[in-house]
Amino acid sequence: MDAPSRAVAEAADRADPLAAFRRRFVETVPDGVNARERPIYLDGNSLGRLPRSTSERLRQVVVDEWGTGLVRSWDDWIDRPQTVGDKIGTQLLGARAGEVLVADSTTVNLYKLAAAALSARPDRSVILTTDDNFPTDRYVLEGLAAERGRQVRTVAADPVDGLDLDALRSAIDQDVALVALSQVAYRSGAVVDPVAVNEMAHAVGALTLWDLSHAVGCLPVDLTNDGTDLAAGCSYKYLHGGPGAPAWLYVRREHQTDLQQPIWGWFGQRDQFAMADRYDAVAGIGRFASGTPPVLALAAVEEGVAVVAEAGVERVRTKAMALTSLAVDLVDCWLAPIGATLASPRDAAGRGAHVSLAHPEAYRLSGALTEQQVVVDVRPPDRVRLGLAPLTTSFVDVWDGLDRLRRILDTRAYESQPSEPGRVT
Amino acid sequence: MDAPSRAVAEAADRADPLAAFRRRFVETVPDGVNARERPIYLDGNSLGRLPRSTSERLRQVVVDEWGTGLVRSWDDWIDRPQTVGDKIGTQLLGARAGEVLVADSTTVNLYKLAAAALSARPDRSVILTTDDNFPTDRYVLEGLAAERGRQVRTVAADPVDGLDLDALRSAIDQDVALVALSQVAYRSGAVVDPVAVNEMAHAVGALTLWDLSHAVGCLPVDLTNDGTDLAAGCSYKYLHGGPGAPAWLYVRREHQTDLQQPIWGWFGQRDQFAMADRYDAVAGIGRFASGTPPVLALAAVEEGVAVVAEAGVERVRTKAMALTSLAVDLVDCWLAPIGATLASPRDAAGRGAHVSLAHPEAYRLSGALTEQQVVVDVRPPDRVRLGLAPLTTSFVDVWDGLDRLRRILDTRAYESQPSEPGRVT
Repeated sequence: MDAPSRAVAEAADRADPLAAFRRRFVETVPDGVNARERPIYLDGNSLGRLPRSTSERLRQVVVDEWGTGLVRSWDDWIDRPQTVGDKIGTQLLGARAGEVLVADSTTVNLYKLAAAALSARPDRSVILTTDDNFPTDRYVLEGLAAERGRQVRTVAADPVDGLDLDALRSAIDQDVALVALSQVAYRSGAVVDPVAVNEMAHAVGALTLWDLSHAVGCLPVDLTNDGTDLAAGCSYKYLHGGPGAPAWLYVRREHQTDLQQPIWGWFGQRDQFAMADRYDAVAGIGRFASGTPPVLALAAVEEGVAVVAEAGVERVRTKAMALTSLAVDLVDCWLAPIGATLASPRDAAGRGAHVSLAHPEAYRLSGALTEQQVVVDVRPPDRVRLGLAPLTTSFVDVWDGLDRLRRILDTRAYESQPSEPGRVT
Repeated sequence: MDAPSRAVAEAADRADPLAAFRRRFVETVPDGVNARERPIYLDGNSLGRLPRSTSERLRQVVVDEWGTGLVRSWDDWIDRPQTVGDKIGTQLLGARAGEVLVADSTTVNLYKLAAAALSARPDRSVILTTDDNFPTDRYVLEGLAAERGRQVRTVAADPVDGLDLDALRSAIDQDVALVALSQVAYRSGAVVDPVAVNEMAHAVGALTLWDLSHAVGCLPVDLTNDGTDLAAGCSYKYLHGGPGAPAWLYVRREHQTDLQQPIWGWFGQRDQFAMADRYDAVAGIGRFASGTPPVLALAAVEEGVAVVAEAGVERVRTKAMALTSLAVDLVDCWLAPIGATLASPRDAAGRGAHVSLAHPEAYRLSGALTEQQVVVDVRPPDRVRLGLAPLTTSFVDVWDGLDRLRRILDTRAYESQPSEPGRVT
């Protein structure tokens, strides 16, 4: 096939029902910069763009609620981890009210939930995950296994197409306490079917813990009907909550009384301000809270979530598939013949909103792209990752970004770039 | 003695070398409000006031660093947990560079540090604390004891004068793995001598973990010379970091290689972006990090810390003792005869920057004070707590606040207030 022309991308932008949402986010184009040099951001899955409304919301929280309201504002703040959690849960995750809490970091939440699951399965020795699960997930599980005398069993996942369900089926048995996976692989974008995995896990009596960091706000999630037990995810990618935004956790309602997380703190305590002698966890999702919630950052999460929910995750998904499909076509036509090949699933339904390319000089390519005002990610060993956040990425962004990459590969302009890894994303 | 007159308080304000710092913080007085009705904030130990510079700093971080810099700003952000930690550590805690990290909540930090200490003392069964330690501290220890088959041994502390060192000495033995205390008691303000406790703990081979939430930014702390092993504290009280601000943790340099915290995550990983298969903790304080740091909230902490450090903790301490001494004199002269008695140490050196009163209708008193525009705290069972944050509280604030309380007691105006506990601080 021929590569889609820029006119095709322009037409797709004109027809895009979410096009107007791009104006809801801050996009800085320096004065006097023409189209060929404008910045292109293809890393929205590392850090989502800033919603325009967030600055004003933060000003209100800081100046009015903190500065003027002072400690009295806790009357409003105290419920926000649950009210913002409910917005994420009911609008984006298919959860019921009272199942999602905004708290801590993704890492801490994975720890709390995995620990709770292990405590609920004391006689089972194995935590099951994949070798391409996100590093922090693997480290959390490794640490818990070391602490509690369990072991992590790792299933090899295909670096492009992700987890094969037969491989998982071969690895799962009655020794498994917990199956911990990412629904969308951080490197390839490959999607795992949560229904199949949850059924497989439940058939042997194991619990499931899903990391939805690369899924939430990018594809429809239906935790209730999927049968998921536990989940966590970050808020700074497709939820546009800001750098290091507080994460969220999900505990299926039916498990909330049985499961006990390990970090007992005053924000999980019944009648908190009685300050009783003994810990007595509150009923519901609140028992998964520990310390004082991050009020300022929570407000930014709420703003980001509101924009995504307004756009609607079904429309977001439709655009994500179209954006990644355009990228795949351009990679196939332009880049594969000159050395950068697709390293993500070919089926649009089988990938999230990012696409990876394999090239031995991935790091140098990203450096050359940076010089050309295109921001991407590199992921070891040899991947250039393009995050096509649907609300903030246009079809022309994809076309222009890959066009610049094509020129870099054509001219071997990347060869003058430093090769050591180092940039932080 | 006679009660100090308002003129005495006014003179103290004129002579206060820190008086100008009050203008560095936002203080909202509604138009047309006269002196007798102006708001008085005596709860700075629940939530410190907003520094004026914080709004602009947050705007920069949000609009410039996030909005424009996007993921590239991680080059600057990545070190902030340590650089802000060093500012707290070296300027306010007597720590050396590389011993303090800003991360997570106080609760999570206490959990990480206590867990690390228990892992380092596997053959010792006891965690020692006091019955008036802050609730979240007690709950964290209780949870860890339950998880790891240890027990919490609780020393009774005097509700007014705090921990008696002889009582601690009687309770400490070779079974103790960890002594976990607060340097300033959250209710009475009583101060414990860290040097004596650290020596006592080390004599039996135990480690020490100090909660410095009510101490940092309020009195000089000298962790290096005190011999403290581990410490944590919050940033939203005397550090003016904002509601739910990220907390900090301290690990003495000599322990950093021996101790391993339980929440293994990618921000504690050596060569983080290599995303290696196995967890390999970075050297130094960074190994106590877990997830992605809260960038926006960290900036607010940095602003608050800068103001406190500029004022100088020695001057802050001098003013704290003078403010609490004025409060004690007024309580003795005015309030004790009508039923509200001092419930904090009489010796200014023996208390932090807050003073508590005992009155059976503490909750109703706080309600009546709120109607009179005076914000205080209640702490069960019967305490009214006055937080006299030195940088933002004037001597006239203390005088006027207690004058309004005197009238409320005199007229029994509190009797019309609801009695149930509920307000959140």
